[in-house]
Amino acid sequence: MKLLRFGPKGAEKPGLLDDDGQVRDLSGKVDELAGDGVSLDALEKIRGIDPSSLPVVSDPGRIGSPLAWVPNFFCIGLNYSKHAAETGADEPKEPILFNKTSSALSGPNDPVIQPRNSTKLDWEVELGIVIGKPCLYVSEDDALDYVAGYATINDVSERAFQIERGGQWTKGKSAPTFGPVGPYLVTADEVGDPQKLAVSLSVNGKVMQDSNTSDMIFTVRQIVSYMSQFMELRPGDIIATGTPEGVGMGLNPQVFLKPGDVMEVTIEKLGGQRQEVVAAD
Amino acid sequence: MKLLRFGPKGAEKPGLLDDDGQVRDLSGKVDELAGDGVSLDALEKIRGIDPSSLPVVSDPGRIGSPLAWVPNFFCIGLNYSKHAAETGADEPKEPILFNKTSSALSGPNDPVIQPRNSTKLDWEVELGIVIGKPCLYVSEDDALDYVAGYATINDVSERAFQIERGGQWTKGKSAPTFGPVGPYLVTADEVGDPQKLAVSLSVNGKVMQDSNTSDMIFTVRQIVSYMSQFMELRPGDIIATGTPEGVGMGLNPQVFLKPGDVMEVTIEKLGGQRQEVVAAD
Repeated sequence: MKLLRFGPKGAEKPGLLDDDGQVRDLSGKVDELAGDGVSLDALEKIRGIDPSSLPVVSDPGRIGSPLAWVPNFFCIGLNYSKHAAETGADEPKEPILFNKTSSALSGPNDPVIQPRNSTKLDWEVELGIVIGKPCLYVSEDDALDYVAGYATINDVSERAFQIERGGQWTKGKSAPTFGPVGPYLVTADEVGDPQKLAVSLSVNGKVMQDSNTSDMIFTVRQIVSYMSQFMELRPGDIIATGTPEGVGMGLNPQVFLKPGDVMEVTIEKLGGQRQEVVAAD
Repeated sequence: MKLLRFGPKGAEKPGLLDDDGQVRDLSGKVDELAGDGVSLDALEKIRGIDPSSLPVVSDPGRIGSPLAWVPNFFCIGLNYSKHAAETGADEPKEPILFNKTSSALSGPNDPVIQPRNSTKLDWEVELGIVIGKPCLYVSEDDALDYVAGYATINDVSERAFQIERGGQWTKGKSAPTFGPVGPYLVTADEVGDPQKLAVSLSVNGKVMQDSNTSDMIFTVRQIVSYMSQFMELRPGDIIATGTPEGVGMGLNPQVFLKPGDVMEVTIEKLGGQRQEVVAAD
């Protein structure tokens, strides 16, 4: 099942993509795709609706983030060996965890706003996990039972803010529009094995990242179990699972984004994104 | 104005404390104290209600967090000189920013659950800022205009999780009950200068932290302005502004909490907390 939200920013309606690729209007059937609205129980109720009974949306217009808001927007750092190497870091022994601010959440095709004083704007295609059930002290064997689904994410990053301004990484991960998610929340049953998905990102038509989730150091199963030893994950939490090699910071010479640049981001089975970079007001 | 939430966990009602120290029931008047429900506009509407028109709650019972949920639970690290010194760190040149997971939010007097495998459970009294208006690229001069109010916070921490498990600090800051907030959200007008508040914390009756927000390296004004250069703050976001010297990690020999220990946490004008440590199931 592919869930989505369509319409102008701040006034999106929930919908689903039917087998013919048409958007069907779920408003009136579900309150909100977010938090408990994307719990496994809530998804089971949506699954019980016959798509053909829902109005076809002939022109959905803009596609928003499939989640209206997120309780937490987590990220895993340096989770592909070659990406760790390109940043000059050792391969981590345990998952590195940090946060994007929840207000960074953005639609998959919305412009990415380069913040004021930004000099090192960068890209990161990532497989996003969406949690479907409260999750604390869960084993690796059971971890996938807590996953509602997956989404394509671009973990947009400002490297000077992230690395040169002291302390923790969240400063460089959190500007408005730094968290494009979607187009779809694809339920776990439709994705199958999350460690067999091609991931890629191009800038202005040139492929910069081209890998597969099979190369992740820590798997989805391991990440969810690991995090649940330290905190309770909740329905609607997003975890961006790290990016493969090919970010701008890792190139020689380094390449960073500027207004007018266009990113195209794709994950197998999850759908594609397209963002143009624009300058902040 | 002092706003609060009272009642069993998960079924709290909103209330306010009147001038006689009685709890008055705000349910029916406000939907929820959280997010836009604590925006400056929403608070202005509550201010227009005559407290004597509201039902007295003779026995409020448990007091919950004054916020039902938080979009983000931010923390500033090492923001008192003597605390930076006791941890062996240099005084930061810019505010250090990290996140607690939003599910760590807890009532001011709820037990603090020591997580499984925890060996270094520690305390941190902190002045909490609650944001009242969307806040992006705001100057220090204007920053206090974006603050809804303040609350007492205990930034409960697990030092082994925080420091010895790789990467960023959030792992040691995010277990369930690691974020006691309240008892009140005290509106900014009632607090006056946030840099003149006595802060203290005792463990089993012994004073461990005893300082004043006048000793903060970065002021409330500076923190809000600084953060707004990197991200948009939203109504209901909490920022815990750092802790003074006297944490367990900084003592020689180090002292950590164990089940049965009792923390008492006070900030001038904001009210006190009391938490007993209990073991995780």
